[in-house]
Amino acid sequence: MADWQEITGGVTAPKGYRAAGIAAGLKPSGAPDLALIWSDVEAIAAGVFTTSVVRAACVDYCRQRLEEKASARAILCNAGQANAATGEQGLADTLESADLLARELSISPNSVLIASTGVIGQRIRMDALRKGIPSVVAASSTEGNDAAAKAICTTDLVPKTIALETTFEGRPVRIGGICKGSGMIHPNMATMLAFVTCDATVSSHLWHDMLKRAADRSFNQITVDGDTSTNDTLIALTNGQSRTPAITEMGPEAEKLEAGLTAVCQHLAKAIARDGEGATCLIEVQVTGAPDDAAGRRVAKTIVGSSLVKSAVFGRDPNWGRIAAAAGRAGVSFDQDNLRIQLGEFLLMENGQPLPFDRPAASAYLKQAAAGAYLKEDTVLMQVQIGNGPGSGIAWGCDLSYDYVKINAEYTT
Amino acid sequence: MADWQEITGGVTAPKGYRAAGIAAGLKPSGAPDLALIWSDVEAIAAGVFTTSVVRAACVDYCRQRLEEKASARAILCNAGQANAATGEQGLADTLESADLLARELSISPNSVLIASTGVIGQRIRMDALRKGIPSVVAASSTEGNDAAAKAICTTDLVPKTIALETTFEGRPVRIGGICKGSGMIHPNMATMLAFVTCDATVSSHLWHDMLKRAADRSFNQITVDGDTSTNDTLIALTNGQSRTPAITEMGPEAEKLEAGLTAVCQHLAKAIARDGEGATCLIEVQVTGAPDDAAGRRVAKTIVGSSLVKSAVFGRDPNWGRIAAAAGRAGVSFDQDNLRIQLGEFLLMENGQPLPFDRPAASAYLKQAAAGAYLKEDTVLMQVQIGNGPGSGIAWGCDLSYDYVKINAEYTT
Repeated sequence: MADWQEITGGVTAPKGYRAAGIAAGLKPSGAPDLALIWSDVEAIAAGVFTTSVVRAACVDYCRQRLEEKASARAILCNAGQANAATGEQGLADTLESADLLARELSISPNSVLIASTGVIGQRIRMDALRKGIPSVVAASSTEGNDAAAKAICTTDLVPKTIALETTFEGRPVRIGGICKGSGMIHPNMATMLAFVTCDATVSSHLWHDMLKRAADRSFNQITVDGDTSTNDTLIALTNGQSRTPAITEMGPEAEKLEAGLTAVCQHLAKAIARDGEGATCLIEVQVTGAPDDAAGRRVAKTIVGSSLVKSAVFGRDPNWGRIAAAAGRAGVSFDQDNLRIQLGEFLLMENGQPLPFDRPAASAYLKQAAAGAYLKEDTVLMQVQIGNGPGSGIAWGCDLSYDYVKINAEYTT
Repeated sequence: MADWQEITGGVTAPKGYRAAGIAAGLKPSGAPDLALIWSDVEAIAAGVFTTSVVRAACVDYCRQRLEEKASARAILCNAGQANAATGEQGLADTLESADLLARELSISPNSVLIASTGVIGQRIRMDALRKGIPSVVAASSTEGNDAAAKAICTTDLVPKTIALETTFEGRPVRIGGICKGSGMIHPNMATMLAFVTCDATVSSHLWHDMLKRAADRSFNQITVDGDTSTNDTLIALTNGQSRTPAITEMGPEAEKLEAGLTAVCQHLAKAIARDGEGATCLIEVQVTGAPDDAAGRRVAKTIVGSSLVKSAVFGRDPNWGRIAAAAGRAGVSFDQDNLRIQLGEFLLMENGQPLPFDRPAASAYLKQAAAGAYLKEDTVLMQVQIGNGPGSGIAWGCDLSYDYVKINAEYTT
């Protein structure tokens, strides 16, 4: 990451993108609920979508669009209604939305991607959307990132955005992103959404592969409650407007770009975990010594997703037994006599045996990390070594608090 | 199940078994903590154990014993210390326990099986155990079931036991069981343990296969918090003392016996789910229309394990969206347009579309079921059809309450 510097501007930091977020009357609350991101020119586009068989119409739509053509001009995202479990009418609404935006931007409907988040089983309020589309286009500008980041939120406590910059052969290249999500499915308010823009020139198959790997090391490694949504969507555009040389194969340039893309995705993913429903802190689990990276990621995600580990962190309880037990059931074979567990600076277990440690100090470490939950630097860190293999993995999550239950129990009735 | 009647006596209901439970001083609280079940004659023995790679010494010990010889005379179980993450000393303690019991019963150490539950990372208090073994043998009798059921508990609110009886060619055959467990790993108090006895005459490979299938339809289909323990153990003995004809191959007799064994395991498994940490009710999810039974069981278990579904039930919220979303991410392919969801008497979704339903009445149904949580008849029932396939599956769990977080957050510190 030494190559990339953080800058402002989010999805409008890369050259040639405009964005907007407006209140179109889709959310009953009147809060901003319609976001637009669009590129001056056709951009290479890649997407990663929910693996659930219960999916929103917009997910099927985007998947098909990107199979037909790996490029796009615009992403339209509404919040308020998820347009999932809405049958053929839901698909018709998605198609109409794309057509309306295409007409307004004078582009092909094939170049429009659509995302939705909100209540499952509800159609988009199409009257409001039809009126909103010209307004969101009119509002769009190169300063529109923060409004867009806000308009895609549902129950998020904070909007989430990041941009990074580097140079390729002396010319600046930028990657920016916004995302939303706090429970994988909040009280019927579905979803994790993330949109990334970039102005590098990359071949579409490389961009697609980079995004897939970046997602595996970021969004696919966070868990708030283990529940995958009907609408989960990650879309990344890159439009070549940096005018840097085209990257068409793996090599130092491609690796540098992928490092930036991964960093943007990881920043956004961690922001979602930190904003988890009822969370008081971010938990980062680093696993080493695994047979391969996939195994390392799997163990890390199992630990960070364990209700017992999450409850222990909420209780500020340095409970190595729960960490060890979660590692053991991750489906990755290892010799328990090699297990080593460290919490912050505290070594809790080595060679599979518990060690004496300063329990009050370790508990104080958990308290202190939680107190600074919204500071990037303050994270509960668990380092787990399961053997001597070359594989490693990181996963992020949050603690399980009374408020998680409260938020999710006291919704409809 | 029409063939089998419920009777009293638990693991001592079948002929030729004695049991006991005593306070041996293993638990700091002074509560009963040492249980013994033994058969007058060598019994066919089968076991199912935790799949975790982080395992207690007694799990490795039992697995090896049963690989060498598929029969046993006695099961000794201590509560208080799990003897997991205790290295070579832990194994030595297990071997010594088996030797001591064997000497006391004048049997071979190879015929002793051992189980432990309690704090991970702690050795068994061997001084107390050495004194306790002669006492628990002396206390054992054909009336000892309830004392044994109590002595294996850790944080359980209620002991759990069942016995069933039928006849084979006019002679009575009985199956009995006890179990413990409330969180898959309670605050370091590991584990689900279940011990089943039977007096039928069965060949050991049939008994083993029956137990495996029964476990897949019972203990493997419950979830409290998704956390597998280091010590999970299910052992079933059958000693032939009913003097009924030997069952050596599948057929009507074997199927009848397996139905009884499955019923005993399901009763015990549901008792664990109902006693889940912080639970206010038992949830039963029935899935039909799956490609096969394994797929049906997988969807059912994913739904009943969803934190969002569990929170909704605690909030008495008839939230079909969460049930649909959990079904969709179970890893089983189906057409979402075939999805049908019923909660109690309330049809919430059909052909993948939400239906209008009486929301206050459905919420009242959830309230009423919870109020009767400890009555067998009162269970929150979710029926989910995912297609037209021949496969089905059932899973059991409990709701996610403030008390779950409280119990698991406020342990050590």
